Amino acid sequence: MDHNQPDRFRRHALQPEEAQRILFEYISPLPDEAVPLADAWGRTLSQDINAPHPFPPFRRSGMDGFAVRAQDLLEASPQMPISLDIIESIPSGVAPTRAIGPGQASRIMTGGMLPDGSDTVVMLEMTTTAEREEHSIVTISRSVPKGINVADIGCEIEQGTHLLHAGQRIGAGESALLAACGYAEVRVTRRPRVAILSTGSELLEIHEPLAPAKIRNSNAPMLAALIKDCGAEPVLLGQVPDDAVKARSIIDESIGTCDILLTSGGVSVGDYDVMVDVLASPGVELLFNKIAMRPGSPTTAATLRGKLLVALSGNPGACFVGFHLFVAPALRKMLSQQPFTANQSFKAHLGKDFAKVNAYRRYIRARTELKDGTVWVTPTGDDKSSLMKTIVGADCLIEIPPLKEGLAKGHLVTAWKL
Amino acid sequence: MDHNQPDRFRRHALQPEEAQRILFEYISPLPDEAVPLADAWGRTLSQDINAPHPFPPFRRSGMDGFAVRAQDLLEASPQMPISLDIIESIPSGVAPTRAIGPGQASRIMTGGMLPDGSDTVVMLEMTTTAEREEHSIVTISRSVPKGINVADIGCEIEQGTHLLHAGQRIGAGESALLAACGYAEVRVTRRPRVAILSTGSELLEIHEPLAPAKIRNSNAPMLAALIKDCGAEPVLLGQVPDDAVKARSIIDESIGTCDILLTSGGVSVGDYDVMVDVLASPGVELLFNKIAMRPGSPTTAATLRGKLLVALSGNPGACFVGFHLFVAPALRKMLSQQPFTANQSFKAHLGKDFAKVNAYRRYIRARTELKDGTVWVTPTGDDKSSLMKTIVGADCLIEIPPLKEGLAKGHLVTAWKL
Repeated sequence: MDHNQPDRFRRHALQPEEAQRILFEYISPLPDEAVPLADAWGRTLSQDINAPHPFPPFRRSGMDGFAVRAQDLLEASPQMPISLDIIESIPSGVAPTRAIGPGQASRIMTGGMLPDGSDTVVMLEMTTTAEREEHSIVTISRSVPKGINVADIGCEIEQGTHLLHAGQRIGAGESALLAACGYAEVRVTRRPRVAILSTGSELLEIHEPLAPAKIRNSNAPMLAALIKDCGAEPVLLGQVPDDAVKARSIIDESIGTCDILLTSGGVSVGDYDVMVDVLASPGVELLFNKIAMRPGSPTTAATLRGKLLVALSGNPGACFVGFHLFVAPALRKMLSQQPFTANQSFKAHLGKDFAKVNAYRRYIRARTELKDGTVWVTPTGDDKSSLMKTIVGADCLIEIPPLKEGLAKGHLVTAWKL
Repeated sequence: MDHNQPDRFRRHALQPEEAQRILFEYISPLPDEAVPLADAWGRTLSQDINAPHPFPPFRRSGMDGFAVRAQDLLEASPQMPISLDIIESIPSGVAPTRAIGPGQASRIMTGGMLPDGSDTVVMLEMTTTAEREEHSIVTISRSVPKGINVADIGCEIEQGTHLLHAGQRIGAGESALLAACGYAEVRVTRRPRVAILSTGSELLEIHEPLAPAKIRNSNAPMLAALIKDCGAEPVLLGQVPDDAVKARSIIDESIGTCDILLTSGGVSVGDYDVMVDVLASPGVELLFNKIAMRPGSPTTAATLRGKLLVALSGNPGACFVGFHLFVAPALRKMLSQQPFTANQSFKAHLGKDFAKVNAYRRYIRARTELKDGTVWVTPTGDDKSSLMKTIVGADCLIEIPPLKEGLAKGHLVTAWKL
């Protein structure tokens, strides 16, 4: 590969939104697959779900008591209690066999199915029962509003109601609704397979002892965790030294088996910045290689054989920001979700003074706090691109525009949920 | 079992906090186990992590450029540029072999290890190089602050710094730090095994067609999802009809193999409320069976052979609230976490009028929204205990105290993050 190409370091910086727009054009939702509901937690629905029947599907008692005709009790009072013949006892789960006629009632349990003819349930505590010759009677000493303690067919969900939409993550509420609607199997979007290749001759494997000039590879485990956070599947390709031929060969071997390939490291302008060479090699179509932002300005994207390749910075903080701004939204789009969720960006008060003057937009790792009905976001520490420790505890990125002077504590800023 | 015991329905209602306090006394953190870091995502650290070495572990260059002695450049200016002999080229990952003496410099890459004698890195763009007879020189035309572009040993993390604490969930930042510190294996608290038994003769399996008086079991899939949300492992015991002997027998078989056993349904006061009988049967020590709250007031807890048994309501909404108030904090404690996380409760503005008068504290399923720096919480719909659909999208519970009149939109209420 040619180290002497004249425009090797000449880069045109895009605004983050422009880079996102270019990237998203290359992404379509992945195909779907059927999984048992028990395995669907955390997956993404690939279809809209409409109620196949009303819910409840029968007239259901909300109380333990007696199913009656409200009109039979219109005149009931402590002075003039009314007695009804008990014709049946209806546990929940068992269909009643007898319709309620004038002067009749059936004992019914919570969740039980109302018998035909009845329209109301009188709660047990408002009744007394007695045995009369060959049958039982229930005595009630007040009238009750017609329909009380009865959940009508479809009162929670009418048949055909749109319940869940494609792109929705399956959590507790979604699981309950899918089960109630009879979806023992659900169609979900296939998890994106995201390959991770770490570059850099300075990298040790995690288990290796420290050695001079070496650090352990922390970006691959971080990226794997971020990929899992997105509901995608990391594929670890290991690490390569600063050797563009070797890196290109691993990329060529792997890109066919994944949906997107990430690299970390080697994207700046040093003599040994391996990804710069890979990205300039034949077959690679560059989409962008510079973003007007800090950290993460050398974040680069390209395509190779129809697949996306995103080259992230080797600096952990810049790698983290690059992932959240470009890779996470791309994965959401692959999962049939919106690249940015509703309410993902929000306004919040800055938790402490921000003194730094910026020529570029900055994304600062920060933590959200809710205090007395107001929202505060406070940087988790120094935002140097190299720092790992400020990633811990960060739940948002504060977006700081180019500034000629700092911002005071309390200033309303934009932040992005992670 | 004795259906006629006189105090079968006599219950003493506890405040939620009192019930939580009683429950938590029976819970200790589970033992830990070692897992590869690659499998540790979402698990809970069982040990504090202190930095085993400083980070960076060597003096690291933050730029591509030349490692120099700042004192050699004190007089450098455009008029009086200073030239230094280049004695070595130091890629990242390779330890320098030569110390920098007066008048000397070494080429160094981003992330490279500074050679002895040097104290400063001059960025490449500020230098010109040339060949002189048998050696190369670099020419610099301004002085630079001593130490610039050098990350000193330990400047990010000093050796012994407390980095992560027991009880912390392992996400992206934690994974990066653990990798950097050489933890190829980490000790994590064992996942709690949470058994789920659904009771009720009205329950169909998810795949079964609808039948009169029947509904499908939606609580077991919902609870399984909630258990996974907590980082625990659901164990599905299936469903039993309203038959206390059968239910007790399944509980006896299973309670030894799980850390906590949940049931749904059968806890109110109907003739067929199976769990009421199970909880009154020999060997079961009742902890509480009524909470002064809505929904979920019949939520019951007991111990059996040293294990906890929590009987949740069969109404999906009440089951959901009971899980979040009692089971989720118990699982957090088993996972060596605090039962309630910092900032779990917060103040927020009510998103719409709340008209209902309450004799009891209510927990309303709701959604948080951040608007212009303020926090709003809006009920996801009707909060009837039977409703499933308001669980979807709920990310908090609004706690409404007993009220004689409703609350207006904008009122500051307490909410609990889910």
